[in-house]
Amino acid sequence: MKLTAREIAGQLGGDIIGDPDVTVSSPARIEYGKAGNICFLANPKYEKYLYTTNASIVLVNRSFTPKEKVNATMIAVDDAYKAVADLLEWFSSLKRSRRKGNRIARIFSFVHTVRGKVKRGTWIGEYTVIERGARVGRDCQIYPQVYIGRNVKVGDNVTIYPGVKVYHDCVIGDNCTLHSGCVIGADGFGFAPLEDGSYKKIQQTGNVIIEDNVEIGANTCVDRATMGSTIIRRGVKLDDLIMVAHNVEIGSDTVIAGQSGIAGSAHLGEHCVLGGQTGIGGHITIAPHTTFAAKTGLMKDWKTPGQSLMGYPAMTYMHYMRSYSAFKKSGETKPSTRDSDAAHS
Amino acid sequence: MKLTAREIAGQLGGDIIGDPDVTVSSPARIEYGKAGNICFLANPKYEKYLYTTNASIVLVNRSFTPKEKVNATMIAVDDAYKAVADLLEWFSSLKRSRRKGNRIARIFSFVHTVRGKVKRGTWIGEYTVIERGARVGRDCQIYPQVYIGRNVKVGDNVTIYPGVKVYHDCVIGDNCTLHSGCVIGADGFGFAPLEDGSYKKIQQTGNVIIEDNVEIGANTCVDRATMGSTIIRRGVKLDDLIMVAHNVEIGSDTVIAGQSGIAGSAHLGEHCVLGGQTGIGGHITIAPHTTFAAKTGLMKDWKTPGQSLMGYPAMTYMHYMRSYSAFKKSGETKPSTRDSDAAHS
Amino acid sequence: MKLTAREIAGQLGGDIIGDPDVTVSSPARIEYGKAGNICFLANPKYEKYLYTTNASIVLVNRSFTPKEKVNATMIAVDDAYKAVADLLEWFSSLKRSRRKGNRIARIFSFVHTVRGKVKRGTWIGEYTVIERGARVGRDCQIYPQVYIGRNVKVGDNVTIYPGVKVYHDCVIGDNCTLHSGCVIGADGFGFAPLEDGSYKKIQQTGNVIIEDNVEIGANTCVDRATMGSTIIRRGVKLDDLIMVAHNVEIGSDTVIAGQSGIAGSAHLGEHCVLGGQTGIGGHITIAPHTTFAAKTGLMKDWKTPGQSLMGYPAMTYMHYMRSYSAFKKSGETKPSTRDSDAAHS
Repeated sequence: MKLTAREIAGQLGGDIIGDPDVTVSSPARIEYGKAGNICFLANPKYEKYLYTTNASIVLVNRSFTPKEKVNATMIAVDDAYKAVADLLEWFSSLKRSRRKGNRIARIFSFVHTVRGKVKRGTWIGEYTVIERGARVGRDCQIYPQVYIGRNVKVGDNVTIYPGVKVYHDCVIGDNCTLHSGCVIGADGFGFAPLEDGSYKKIQQTGNVIIEDNVEIGANTCVDRATMGSTIIRRGVKLDDLIMVAHNVEIGSDTVIAGQSGIAGSAHLGEHCVLGGQTGIGGHITIAPHTTFAAKTGLMKDWKTPGQSLMGYPAMTYMHYMRSYSAFKKSGETKPSTRDSDAAHS
Repeated sequence: MKLTAREIAGQLGGDIIGDPDVTVSSPARIEYGKAGNICFLANPKYEKYLYTTNASIVLVNRSFTPKEKVNATMIAVDDAYKAVADLLEWFSSLKRSRRKGNRIARIFSFVHTVRGKVKRGTWIGEYTVIERGARVGRDCQIYPQVYIGRNVKVGDNVTIYPGVKVYHDCVIGDNCTLHSGCVIGADGFGFAPLEDGSYKKIQQTGNVIIEDNVEIGANTCVDRATMGSTIIRRGVKLDDLIMVAHNVEIGSDTVIAGQSGIAGSAHLGEHCVLGGQTGIGGHITIAPHTTFAAKTGLMKDWKTPGQSLMGYPAMTYMHYMRSYSAFKKSGETKPSTRDSDAAHS
Repeated sequence: MKLTAREIAGQLGGDIIGDPDVTVSSPARIEYGKAGNICFLANPKYEKYLYTTNASIVLVNRSFTPKEKVNATMIAVDDAYKAVADLLEWFSSLKRSRRKGNRIARIFSFVHTVRGKVKRGTWIGEYTVIERGARVGRDCQIYPQVYIGRNVKVGDNVTIYPGVKVYHDCVIGDNCTLHSGCVIGADGFGFAPLEDGSYKKIQQTGNVIIEDNVEIGANTCVDRATMGSTIIRRGVKLDDLIMVAHNVEIGSDTVIAGQSGIAGSAHLGEHCVLGGQTGIGGHITIAPHTTFAAKTGLMKDWKTPGQSLMGYPAMTYMHYMRSYSAFKKSGETKPSTRDSDAAHS
């Protein structure tokens, strides 16, 4: 499969700077680009590679002006990062279409257990279990070794990778992707202390509702509600190894990086962005468009939308950086005592 | 299934304030309560919902006095949080009993591999493997896709959710619950540095012992000991995505929130409480009844029981909050320089 | 199986101090040593147990001189920690050889799905799926419930524990060990923001390359590259619940403790050591031989090799400890105000 710069520019609505007939057969990162590769430049940190790359084509922003000579053919687009998303999807779809016949052939060849209902066009892998009362929509890909518990509802066009486990009564919307090892609907962490110091389990009788267009990363856990529902709103993207506790609600189009944890009954607004290893305390409410630096810990409601937070307990990013600057200064050794480990005030 | 306030108050030993004949059919959270729901109020943060809820019944503490008019029937109990645990267990047991016949029917219908011994009343799901020498007690529920390695011992009345993996030689006590994706007995992280800078694996020849009444959350990892045992004592509750390293011992009735990590050979006393994302250093000993704020990192022994810790390295909670208050102040901008980002001393 | 001190000293090249004819049958930790056990002493923190242990043999460093009377026979070696690695490997190999016949017997007795090619001497567990185009080398142990996607290449002598998932196109070198629940090659976390505030998925078309002699802990996730490869170099050891994001490269013989996270496109040098819960920012480069205290967060390139880091944002360990010492002091209460919680400047 070879594509010319002209074909790609046509597909992406871009302008060609260089040879429109040069061909490429695969995408690559700009620092590793070879002849036959198409690369992109969006992060200015990688600009230096533009001048040395052997890639045949590089996608750039229309706003970008090179400072040196560029050997590759450039295709200028409004948003190079978004264009690469389109491009990779296009490459992937070309690849996937070759596999299609195979998917149909396989439907007769494996061992799985289906007690629920599965609509047409859905492919189910080996050793997958779909329990009684479960319903799976059209055109889903359910890989091997998946568990879909009783009365679970899965929408249309959902991809569930190998080994995903969905407990009973949970609901997954349309166009969702669940990566390997994620666990949806395990019991929330609720125990009532008894007088002898031991704990009595509080049955977790609720469920998890995942709306449309959500992606859940590998080994991420979304716990079921004690009562009612833990809710992941439309368009949310969760990275790997995240924990979402019982009765949490995550607002639409919020993006959460790996290893973050959201404690019980917290409500996050829409369009928030959480850096990795962030922690959100229980029973708090967070305004929309709040951004969290990695490792931030927020313990109280945050009511002003659109702010950037950092630190634990969290404050605004700029405030934290000023405080941390003073903290850092307090540990500097004076030139005359550089080799001393003593702290000075 | 409808229950009256009178029946519920009888079951829980509570006093009715309102209509004893009002009926409910399901539990709900107080902020979402509708007619036919029973709710509870324990956390004062939710008191405002008591005055507006449409729930038919609300469980409250005997010590609680409402400040406004309440439409719902109230049932006053000694400990509303514990009462809700009893109540949800009761609702669940009514639900479960309806499934009983089914469990027996299923025992003939699926594919799994059992080389070990399994006692009566235990249900084993599809594609589960129980290796040679393993023994599983009575009345367990072993869901599909579980792996139970050689010579593992599982007690009575244990629930093992789909996809749990238990390595060889480990021991699980009675009445334990293991959630999906948790891994019991993977190798501890032990490597001896060699002269060329590479590492030689130290075989992990020990096991994991989990005592009775323990609950292990989804995707949590408890590693096997190098020699001897990693021990989780009676009544311990572990949340999701926790890491317990080799040769750790966790004292009875200790409760650990999600994403916390306990490094090798640490010993935690009984009745400790760890907030989420806490880290405990290797080879240290922690006194009983120690409480950790989320994200705390403790690197040295902590010998005084009953204290609350915070920070990294950890100090007492009050001490940390005072230090952090000064830290925060150091980054505040003066009124006249509010828009300046410069740090000032 | 009983071994004398003389046999063990011969195997390890050690000198006997005590009775060369005393026998042992199993290893144990020094604080739990009983008659018939062999223990070791490397960490000085455990020296006190040497004088009270009932173990029959204790391995010690040649440089060590006991301060009190020792009842056990001692075997002095150059490096007791490395010697115990050799010893446990020896014990394990004696145990394993007893199981050999069984492995051959089992190859005819179970249910799994192999569409790829598997070389001689490799054992495959039940309910494992090896997809079309995948190739698995010689003498591997692929446990039950493993998923090996299309076109995956697995080298020789690889151990893959139950429930591991390897997505399509990934490459695993020789002598690797993958623990239960780890996920290799799930999609990297890449989404392009659209004008309406929602996100468009960027297809992750690359793969993961794991070189030889790598160990990956339980439930650890290594994501596939957007384009090109996420690379784990020769000899790297990853603990449990680690996240390695797309396009990361980890230099050879680097060791990473549990729950650490490496953000996208970060490059770690060789021989780094990361404490637990460390976070590494995206698109940064880290010099070889850098050491990270637990919970450190590094957000920028670190160019000087061989340093120890701590804090967030990271600084040198000594610098952080000095700053933290001042921070701690700022929250101390004066003797006269010990019971006051007020912060003072």
